[in-house]
Amino acid sequence: MKGFSLNQATTKRWPLEDLVAGCVKAGVPAVGLWREEVAEYGLDKAAALVRDAGLEVSSLCRSGFFQLPDWRDSNRQAIDEAHALGTDTLVLVSGGLPEGSRDIDGARRHIGDAIGELVPYAKAAGVRLAIEALHPMFCSDRCVVATLGQALQLAAPYPADTVGVVIDTYHLWWDDQVWRLIEVAGREGRIHSFQLADWITPLPEGVLLGRGLPGTGSVDMRRFATAVREAGYEGYVEVEVFHEDVWSRPGAEVLDEAYAGYRAAVE
Amino acid sequence: MKGFSLNQATTKRWPLEDLVAGCVKAGVPAVGLWREEVAEYGLDKAAALVRDAGLEVSSLCRSGFFQLPDWRDSNRQAIDEAHALGTDTLVLVSGGLPEGSRDIDGARRHIGDAIGELVPYAKAAGVRLAIEALHPMFCSDRCVVATLGQALQLAAPYPADTVGVVIDTYHLWWDDQVWRLIEVAGREGRIHSFQLADWITPLPEGVLLGRGLPGTGSVDMRRFATAVREAGYEGYVEVEVFHEDVWSRPGAEVLDEAYAGYRAAVE
Repeated sequence: MKGFSLNQATTKRWPLEDLVAGCVKAGVPAVGLWREEVAEYGLDKAAALVRDAGLEVSSLCRSGFFQLPDWRDSNRQAIDEAHALGTDTLVLVSGGLPEGSRDIDGARRHIGDAIGELVPYAKAAGVRLAIEALHPMFCSDRCVVATLGQALQLAAPYPADTVGVVIDTYHLWWDDQVWRLIEVAGREGRIHSFQLADWITPLPEGVLLGRGLPGTGSVDMRRFATAVREAGYEGYVEVEVFHEDVWSRPGAEVLDEAYAGYRAAVE
Repeated sequence: MKGFSLNQATTKRWPLEDLVAGCVKAGVPAVGLWREEVAEYGLDKAAALVRDAGLEVSSLCRSGFFQLPDWRDSNRQAIDEAHALGTDTLVLVSGGLPEGSRDIDGARRHIGDAIGELVPYAKAAGVRLAIEALHPMFCSDRCVVATLGQALQLAAPYPADTVGVVIDTYHLWWDDQVWRLIEVAGREGRIHSFQLADWITPLPEGVLLGRGLPGTGSVDMRRFATAVREAGYEGYVEVEVFHEDVWSRPGAEVLDEAYAGYRAAVE
């Protein structure tokens, strides 16, 4: 694997210029960026900042949300942004059930169709669409794609160099099928991103901001890192944690802990 | 299927005598009971109260928690209680990871072994052990059995008339494998309990008390009821909801809504 990458969401309140300087200082070779923060700073300015610092962009988070009426335009725009930032990987979070709907199969079919429509545009831009399964607790309101098996099934009709999956420890650790599926994903060349976050309890209200830095929770990080490496993954390993307690701490301190968590898992 | 059963947890603050009278008045033929509430009222007294009212006990919740040192004694005691209450079904929630452990495979193996040890005792008491998969968001701290597939795998080595599974809509609705697995469970004669609760958001802190009454959330209840019926299930259909807003309302009112939710799903 290529090395550690700090996903920007882990240090959400660290201004981008400080984050980039902090990564350079700590010897971190790559960052994962988020569309909202990039837009706020300015797309071209952000691309230049990161490039001039010698950092790679391991992924852009995130697009998808295919239940929204503007999914076509917003996903094409996200592909353009990924291209402009020089990353080859755009993370897709599918979105939940349409308002008032209980048709989960229909929602999943729609996502497959929508991804199919985006494939030529993504291919032309040299951007890979990485389908992320979120933990099943997000199934109704954020992501009807709840398992790696589903993500692989959605990716299957399309070429692996354009549509793949994200392996995120936080979302997948509970699934006894995940080890077999990581092998399958690797064999198919579909592991486009690998992200570390730990499972800690109690979950906060709304459950979105409940993640722990790698090593602080219930997930066997080393088992995941070994499985993903043995499946042939050669990209960066992002640490991506959302938690108010983490966000309220100094960015450089969190970066150090995230990097240490990565090393403990991977080295 | 046999009809509606009110699981006591849905009206947690309704005193047992009122609950029993309320069920009789509403024409409800069965109740699902909880060990803590039964113990508080008195086991033999509770058994007599329910029997004298002409109600069946569809299940006793719950035992399991195999990561605790006293699992042998506490589960045998629960089997005795189920027998005393005249129910044939004891719901097992496996328990989470042992304190500080990340060995989820080991925890699952231990559960399989522990259930095996209980089988002769349960068989002698005429009590079926119903393994309940909880939603994966409970995997670390309440139940490492996170899918119906795992529950069936744990049950597989033992006779179906002694070890089976619970189909609970709240825990399983996100899983695209569930329809196939309900068929398998039915074919094997392992569906020992069927419980309805709906998925609503946002989840509260700690996520335990986040369930909705059937019909208020994202779950296609009718699809579940049809699948479970077609799989050959002939038992009661319990409504089992944990939510502070539901608990704070009058028991009779909640009973009516639970019953209506059952009817909308089943009839």
